[in-house]
Amino acid sequence: MKNNQFAIRPTEFNDQLKELTEIDFLDKDNSSETDTIKLWTSFLSKAFIEDKTSTSFEQKLSTYMATPTQNLSEYLDTSTGVSVAAFYNVALQLLKFNPDVDFSFDEPLAAMEKIQLLIADHQGDNFTVPELKSAWYWLLATHNKDGQTFVDSLASKGYFTKFYGKVTKPLLFNGKTLPVFDPHKLIREVVYVESPQDSDHDGKRDLLKAEILRPYETEHGLKVPVLYTASPYNQGTNDETGEKLMHNVNVPLTHKEPNNLKYEDIEYHEPKADLPNPRVINGETKKAEETFARESSYTLNNYFLARGFAVIYMAGIGTKDSDGFRTTGDKEETISTISIIKWLTGDLPAFTNRIDNIEIKAWWSNKKVAMTGRSYLGTLATAAATTGVKGLKTVISEAAISSWYDYYRDGGLVIAPDGFPGEDADVLAEETFSRRLQPGDFHNIKDAWDKQIKAIDAGQDRNSGDYNTFWDARNYHKDFKNITADVFMVHGLNDWNVKPRNVERLWNGIKHNGVTQKIILHQGQHIYINAFRSIDYSDIINLWLTYELLGVDNQAKEIIPNVIVQDNVKPETWTAYKDWSNADNKVINYNLSNDKLTTQKVNESTASFTDQLKPADFELYRDNNATWQSDLLVGGKKLTGHQLTFKTEPLTKDLLLDGKINVNLKVSSSKDLGMLSFQVVDFGDAKRLNVSPSILSANSLASTYDWREDNLREFTLGKQTSAKMITKGHINLQNRENNYKVDELKPNIFYNVNVDLQPTFFKLKARHQLGLIVYATDFGMTVRGNQNIEYTVQLDQSSLIVPLHTN
Amino acid sequence: MKNNQFAIRPTEFNDQLKELTEIDFLDKDNSSETDTIKLWTSFLSKAFIEDKTSTSFEQKLSTYMATPTQNLSEYLDTSTGVSVAAFYNVALQLLKFNPDVDFSFDEPLAAMEKIQLLIADHQGDNFTVPELKSAWYWLLATHNKDGQTFVDSLASKGYFTKFYGKVTKPLLFNGKTLPVFDPHKLIREVVYVESPQDSDHDGKRDLLKAEILRPYETEHGLKVPVLYTASPYNQGTNDETGEKLMHNVNVPLTHKEPNNLKYEDIEYHEPKADLPNPRVINGETKKAEETFARESSYTLNNYFLARGFAVIYMAGIGTKDSDGFRTTGDKEETISTISIIKWLTGDLPAFTNRIDNIEIKAWWSNKKVAMTGRSYLGTLATAAATTGVKGLKTVISEAAISSWYDYYRDGGLVIAPDGFPGEDADVLAEETFSRRLQPGDFHNIKDAWDKQIKAIDAGQDRNSGDYNTFWDARNYHKDFKNITADVFMVHGLNDWNVKPRNVERLWNGIKHNGVTQKIILHQGQHIYINAFRSIDYSDIINLWLTYELLGVDNQAKEIIPNVIVQDNVKPETWTAYKDWSNADNKVINYNLSNDKLTTQKVNESTASFTDQLKPADFELYRDNNATWQSDLLVGGKKLTGHQLTFKTEPLTKDLLLDGKINVNLKVSSSKDLGMLSFQVVDFGDAKRLNVSPSILSANSLASTYDWREDNLREFTLGKQTSAKMITKGHINLQNRENNYKVDELKPNIFYNVNVDLQPTFFKLKARHQLGLIVYATDFGMTVRGNQNIEYTVQLDQSSLIVPLHTN
Repeated sequence: MKNNQFAIRPTEFNDQLKELTEIDFLDKDNSSETDTIKLWTSFLSKAFIEDKTSTSFEQKLSTYMATPTQNLSEYLDTSTGVSVAAFYNVALQLLKFNPDVDFSFDEPLAAMEKIQLLIADHQGDNFTVPELKSAWYWLLATHNKDGQTFVDSLASKGYFTKFYGKVTKPLLFNGKTLPVFDPHKLIREVVYVESPQDSDHDGKRDLLKAEILRPYETEHGLKVPVLYTASPYNQGTNDETGEKLMHNVNVPLTHKEPNNLKYEDIEYHEPKADLPNPRVINGETKKAEETFARESSYTLNNYFLARGFAVIYMAGIGTKDSDGFRTTGDKEETISTISIIKWLTGDLPAFTNRIDNIEIKAWWSNKKVAMTGRSYLGTLATAAATTGVKGLKTVISEAAISSWYDYYRDGGLVIAPDGFPGEDADVLAEETFSRRLQPGDFHNIKDAWDKQIKAIDAGQDRNSGDYNTFWDARNYHKDFKNITADVFMVHGLNDWNVKPRNVERLWNGIKHNGVTQKIILHQGQHIYINAFRSIDYSDIINLWLTYELLGVDNQAKEIIPNVIVQDNVKPETWTAYKDWSNADNKVINYNLSNDKLTTQKVNESTASFTDQLKPADFELYRDNNATWQSDLLVGGKKLTGHQLTFKTEPLTKDLLLDGKINVNLKVSSSKDLGMLSFQVVDFGDAKRLNVSPSILSANSLASTYDWREDNLREFTLGKQTSAKMITKGHINLQNRENNYKVDELKPNIFYNVNVDLQPTFFKLKARHQLGLIVYATDFGMTVRGNQNIEYTVQLDQSSLIVPLHTN
Repeated sequence: MKNNQFAIRPTEFNDQLKELTEIDFLDKDNSSETDTIKLWTSFLSKAFIEDKTSTSFEQKLSTYMATPTQNLSEYLDTSTGVSVAAFYNVALQLLKFNPDVDFSFDEPLAAMEKIQLLIADHQGDNFTVPELKSAWYWLLATHNKDGQTFVDSLASKGYFTKFYGKVTKPLLFNGKTLPVFDPHKLIREVVYVESPQDSDHDGKRDLLKAEILRPYETEHGLKVPVLYTASPYNQGTNDETGEKLMHNVNVPLTHKEPNNLKYEDIEYHEPKADLPNPRVINGETKKAEETFARESSYTLNNYFLARGFAVIYMAGIGTKDSDGFRTTGDKEETISTISIIKWLTGDLPAFTNRIDNIEIKAWWSNKKVAMTGRSYLGTLATAAATTGVKGLKTVISEAAISSWYDYYRDGGLVIAPDGFPGEDADVLAEETFSRRLQPGDFHNIKDAWDKQIKAIDAGQDRNSGDYNTFWDARNYHKDFKNITADVFMVHGLNDWNVKPRNVERLWNGIKHNGVTQKIILHQGQHIYINAFRSIDYSDIINLWLTYELLGVDNQAKEIIPNVIVQDNVKPETWTAYKDWSNADNKVINYNLSNDKLTTQKVNESTASFTDQLKPADFELYRDNNATWQSDLLVGGKKLTGHQLTFKTEPLTKDLLLDGKINVNLKVSSSKDLGMLSFQVVDFGDAKRLNVSPSILSANSLASTYDWREDNLREFTLGKQTSAKMITKGHINLQNRENNYKVDELKPNIFYNVNVDLQPTFFKLKARHQLGLIVYATDFGMTVRGNQNIEYTVQLDQSSLIVPLHTN
């Protein structure tokens, strides 16, 4: 068990005293106390809030050990000072660490260090009064074994309910907000924003429903910032009708007619739209007409609901209770996404219902907004940021798409997000088109919607896999230059749904914008990380948003490392770095020879493989993608002759791969069409972290009394395996120059191809081998035609270029 | 999608009107309404509680379709009567069914029937006023697509919050309680019951902590019943120190010295204990001194917390904040378990803390108690029932042990609960000994606890596997005769942790007690079923407890079928039966011949197998029990010569197996020791239900506004498989007569063995084959010695006797 806290704010002693007073640990009775035993007792008494009488408190004290032989009650009765050792013996128990497992009463400080818990300054073996106050301060800021600070664990027991109804502004501790706003008194209201667009072409501006939760105190003058989650899934999904649109991927790759397209030929330009006039406002009110019982929520937002933030969920165009059509990520969707922000800053109107045009203003808003959410939600946060919209101070984009081509396509190929072969932009549009869930609404727009879906299908062009105007309209890179919000990115290095290229391009694409940018790279797949034991993600975001949205000078920008990467070898290990995928990183250049990757010179040679499998093998892999992937890594018998594998000698020292590995091949196809796939592999026996987190305890995580809970999670080690894919990539041999221009491909002629694989950050251990697998059909991602194509690689004119982390 | 509701109470029209009035759907404004359109509109208006104005309501109406061409708003404006079709078109939408998937607006009644939803009586195509009131009543009682009644879905939206603070007794609808007690105002208090025992031998009666949640209204005179969950896990567990005690199962089976033990020789007799005197009571109070923020809860209990029930959790002897030692299911634990019931009925004292002997009475209790919980929790409920303790009206024992020998042993063998090889009574005692989690308490009892663990280890006697005095002390069958509480059983037919024998013995063991007994057998493993979509379990228990604890004459005993069994072939299908495992069920007697099960006469023949595997195969199966199990079923190559498999011809018609299949073998061992294992198998290609439920939607299930949520679950079909184990059993060849007497076993001599397999209820489809597999080492359950033993079966003197469901 190891703790990693990045959001502890260094705090001057006087500020510590001030904060301890504000949260009532220091009061008129104990602040002048000169006896450390009495002072400590008063702290403990305030912390044991479940014990309502002195007898009950005494009883509880006796259940803690202060020394190897004395319980806490005895210690407080007999000792004349608070020893550092006794304090931390008790602290470790208060933090739920276990003397049978995590520490020994003989050496608490050694355990504190090992678990990476903060030990307060002290001059001697006993704490002085100021040292003890400071030690209590730091204890409150320290994470316990269940993944939350001691002060948050007290919050979950009800410590801060005494502040309910008595605060007029957020209460802070160590630079972060505390849950002092009663979540059961939240105002829940619906408004309909008039968005400056008519995406369903009905001649009226689209009204978009937003669900707002704001502290009751806003009714009495408190102005609050907003955490806004734009979630197209939020109002329901059409799983069955979406499933029906899924495309068949068991189809052959086809030859494409070469062309001479330039970017200008396919560049997207916003059409000049005839925008309908705004509605004529027919009155104004401060009171909403519609409420809701339970929003579809993100648990990180729940955490902030008692801390003085409002939360807004909006699903956008084409969703239940809103107008418009789904478009899967184009400018219309971006306009839809930011309309609520413009309402919050006073730049767009909203109405209490869809009928009578009575305006309602965001009179409770402090006009500062952050966006949160993962995947499509994070994507829309990124999209919103690219508009530079006023009021959007920061986006926290988790596992976000930065260009939809990088989600559904790659290198001139249709490439599925892992686990969803056959999904495409039209399927996603249908799945999220929750207007369908309201038959009375859907009845009127059915035909127009059918046309819209057909238009998306035509635009996405599964036949070519090329980058075209449709995808250019869904590429946020083009507008990175407009980003003025600070950007907090989170991505899984094993996310093969939204692949890491999406975040790497954002990371490296805004370095000259003058905004603050942070990134956390974890070892998971497509997941949230806000309830992990080994990293204080909620605290980090709390520190961040307290700075960004409340304008508190809490040094968040300086305290939070720019880059935090979870170690892929050691569990519970997160490390701060200066940068990721820096263009100046040094590289190793590996040559290919037989089955070797080598830095030596190599002789002239070729190697070939055919894509076509025996029908039974093909069917097995088609139906069991995981079996295919594990057979590919171990070079299973069924794949002999169907892949090329190259490995280095066992490494003599650890390598820290950092950035985009590049594959440079001279290759021919036996046909006038072809595709190649690549996997870079860590070969070596090891127990590796599972990419899906384990639930350590269900619903155990609460940071607010009697409020919503979350599962406590952690990445744990799986069974020993002999290999692990580090990264991968794909290319259509007819898109050697770029993704929009189709090159000629003559059978059995050698061509140079150069492919940047998905960016990574990976520690390859000494004695392991780095490997490259070259193959064609990727059963998890490409089309699967089982075509009789032979590929030949001119090995001596091929190479693998591996960037290494360079300080 | 198919609905199964067993808890709908037939209700006279006048009672329907009364209830509709009580829950405010009928009021002074609409109860005399003669226009059905206006009446329906008023019902809808009350149901759409999120819409606070008439405009907002109008807007919502327009999102529903009433006919294939008219939305509900248009329909209400233009129609002169409420057609049955329009009513159910809207009803299906209100119940969240989807016109793209579940029904068509042309034929709503056909869909209602297909989904098994109740259609109200009607004479014509349009509802009359009384018919419409009745139709609304039944709609409220009907389950929606998300597994809850429409009235509960309204509750989750806040419909019943208007009753908060205004009711003085539970509010009922259709015989079941409604959530009218504000769960955020619950009183949470701790008491310490003085139990008449001294299980840690410290010279003082054990004080046991109980956590109580009761409606705030009890402070003002409301007397409430209690749902009591006795959960030894509830105060925390010692996973690491428990793990250390796990026993090695990779050990050989050993020869046992034959004996002539009779039951009297090993029978357990309660020792005459010198019980310490009760504490001298030092005063009395009505107010507790200790509270708690969050109990470790069972979601079914959460559901009842807003419905006028108190809930109590107690972990019992040897747990955190309590006295005593863990014993794993003996009489001491039973005494501990029922002590809180005796407090609730006034027969035992409790104190506000452990120190000053101030008594606190259960002055708010109506003296009626039900016990709830699964596994060990359900076991303690069963144990409590065997005492006949006053006040315990019913136990709901889910997946409960009825004899600990049937949990950790079988047929003279150590048999692990599936998934936990090496676990035993001592391990469980250590795991649940949460006094260890309070170092200040544990420090004083460490040595005594070490002795206790050693004594349990000695008593459980892993060397013999025999039934002995230790296990006799943990056999609740002996006291079934004392059960006076009604018993509601729930068990998984695929529960190989607490095996079905446990519940079958209880089911058949209390038939002459004169109590009401109900049982639900599902197709899952060791799980809860209170959040499933296809069965109204929470409603059933609501009906049951409203009858048992509130004394309401709601016909629960008559309405709830005695036996409900989930179909193993068709998803979402639950069927009522009269009995399970009835001794009078007819049987088929199969003879064994070569690899056949046949009802024909067979010729003299033998078949042999050896237990010993190649070391590599042994290690594979030792480390991958699931691989072993699937290889066993398909007769994998590695197991050739290591098992015998017998199959019937493909069946010509379905068979409904019901009860205990019996294996009758004449068999020899090549050594003076031996064990046999048996699996009865359904051979035939089919998609079968997964034994672990799928989560349909996380945290989507709430039946109370702004209160705790649950995951909606359902058993779904897995991939096609060729075989499935139906049931299994084991025997030590030295325990041919019974589990306590050791028989001699001479090498290569044939002996008769007769084994009742675990009871089942299984539909075997026509064209499938029934199979029997005979083998020795069961990698998931027995010791694994990989011994060189050959077993030979005299086939013509062996048989398989299969009971069939007989009406």
